Amino acid sequence: MKITILGCYAATPRSFTNPTSQVLEMKNHLFLIDCGEGTQVQLRRNRIKFSKIRHIFISHLHGDHFYGLVGLISTFRLLNREQELHVYGPKGIKEIISLQLKLANSWTNYPLIFHELQSKEQELLYEDDKLSVKTIPLKHRVYTNGFLFEEKPGERKLLVHEAQRLNIDKTLFKSLKKGKDVVSEDGELIPNSMVTSDPEPVKSYAFCSDTVYDPEIVPMIKRVTALYHESTFLEEQHELAFPTKHSTAKQAASIARDAGVQHLILGHYSTRYSDIELFRTEASEIFQNISLADDGKEFTF
Amino acid sequence: MKITILGCYAATPRSFTNPTSQVLEMKNHLFLIDCGEGTQVQLRRNRIKFSKIRHIFISHLHGDHFYGLVGLISTFRLLNREQELHVYGPKGIKEIISLQLKLANSWTNYPLIFHELQSKEQELLYEDDKLSVKTIPLKHRVYTNGFLFEEKPGERKLLVHEAQRLNIDKTLFKSLKKGKDVVSEDGELIPNSMVTSDPEPVKSYAFCSDTVYDPEIVPMIKRVTALYHESTFLEEQHELAFPTKHSTAKQAASIARDAGVQHLILGHYSTRYSDIELFRTEASEIFQNISLADDGKEFTF
Repeated sequence: MKITILGCYAATPRSFTNPTSQVLEMKNHLFLIDCGEGTQVQLRRNRIKFSKIRHIFISHLHGDHFYGLVGLISTFRLLNREQELHVYGPKGIKEIISLQLKLANSWTNYPLIFHELQSKEQELLYEDDKLSVKTIPLKHRVYTNGFLFEEKPGERKLLVHEAQRLNIDKTLFKSLKKGKDVVSEDGELIPNSMVTSDPEPVKSYAFCSDTVYDPEIVPMIKRVTALYHESTFLEEQHELAFPTKHSTAKQAASIARDAGVQHLILGHYSTRYSDIELFRTEASEIFQNISLADDGKEFTF
Repeated sequence: MKITILGCYAATPRSFTNPTSQVLEMKNHLFLIDCGEGTQVQLRRNRIKFSKIRHIFISHLHGDHFYGLVGLISTFRLLNREQELHVYGPKGIKEIISLQLKLANSWTNYPLIFHELQSKEQELLYEDDKLSVKTIPLKHRVYTNGFLFEEKPGERKLLVHEAQRLNIDKTLFKSLKKGKDVVSEDGELIPNSMVTSDPEPVKSYAFCSDTVYDPEIVPMIKRVTALYHESTFLEEQHELAFPTKHSTAKQAASIARDAGVQHLILGHYSTRYSDIELFRTEASEIFQNISLADDGKEFTF
């Protein structure tokens, strides 16, 4: 599981910082999460293959999280994309994009499929045999969702030598990997646990931005491998956090601690702070395993 | 008169090239012409004061000419802009921008005034005592305008010593600057030309992008100081120019020659060409005074 941060600064793009966008690589998928202005250039700079992106998740309709989407969709067209593109985002996103493509007289030549969200309950957005993607309803100034990406448990690992020693026919190996008990060539019942070991532990990633401090999300992100939680402010400016519906580094760390996550990644820093290490320092008092997002940074778990 | 090229490459933004946008400084105005994705970052990199921009002109609604507009408008809001912003562009631009600001629940706190264009005849868009701005109707795949910026003649220059020698009262100097004849203290009629010289020659700038080769624009851009004319292709690819409604370098040079302009600036290069000097070489066979636009380049006339 790899996360590439394309942009992680709040509000307006600046000469050397980018608004929110990141790519999650999980089980051979490339998921694009949010798409601030300049995302397509950041994708190029980070050498991410445009054609591998088939699903884009937009948290909310503030410009710093989606103004780069229409440009990316247009570029896909110029690159002669043929495969489907799925866009998940708040209701209204389809109208915004469609209007612009219509007025430019340049509808896409590939299937562009919008999945508009408006529920305030958790929803399953995507599922295959390897993973699932669900919303994490967040509280912000406009309708907002975080996203939870969860791998599914893989097959059990076959202990080949043990299976051979017990004289189990090879045609039964598939059943063993699926956790079934089998009967050996000698007619003995072999319990699955005797010839398999547990599968690789599953990994999971929760993206939570933008949001006010909200303990209600804790049950949804329990024990995830990595949590990206916004920390727009430091506690020193905590009086700004609630009215703007953002969080402080300390609040993000409290959520991480209460959910028992393995890693916390902080981001969505207000550009008022010149040193992002201050966010780590503050959050470390509450939670230990902290990383700071920064544009171009990669995290592998 | 100064032109700063923020971006001048066709189609999609790339790691180190930007789509169309430029700033014209004329008579203490800063006019922004087109606004491709990433324009606000290019404005910062080129140290152009956001607050001095009061008029934005959008040629047409293809993404590489306006996808950066909504972001810039939003950033003005975050910067607490108070003064009016005037946006001139094709009909539909108001709906696109308004819809996005509405869904983000973040209408501007400054007056945002749209001037939507749909005439196929030349129109006067802006005028004050120092200059005027008119459309140059262009032919492209969608409704498109170029823009003509023209200084107005200033006052005549007073030859002060001569006026004193002829015993002209100081209160008449204003009339002299306006080209009037006056009567001296000695009762003599003094023809204006005896005590004034011609004003500074006026400057003018024509922006023509995107457009197919179209001699009909020649009368509108006669003898301008500088003409920016798109040259998406070289003659080698001239068979692509007409169907896509773009021009070659040679065609741009023909327009410059026929209009008798002083300087031709080429730009809007297709990213298929790795060396933009090829455009100069081709155009030079038709017209001598050629400059190549490039991102970050400034031209002063």
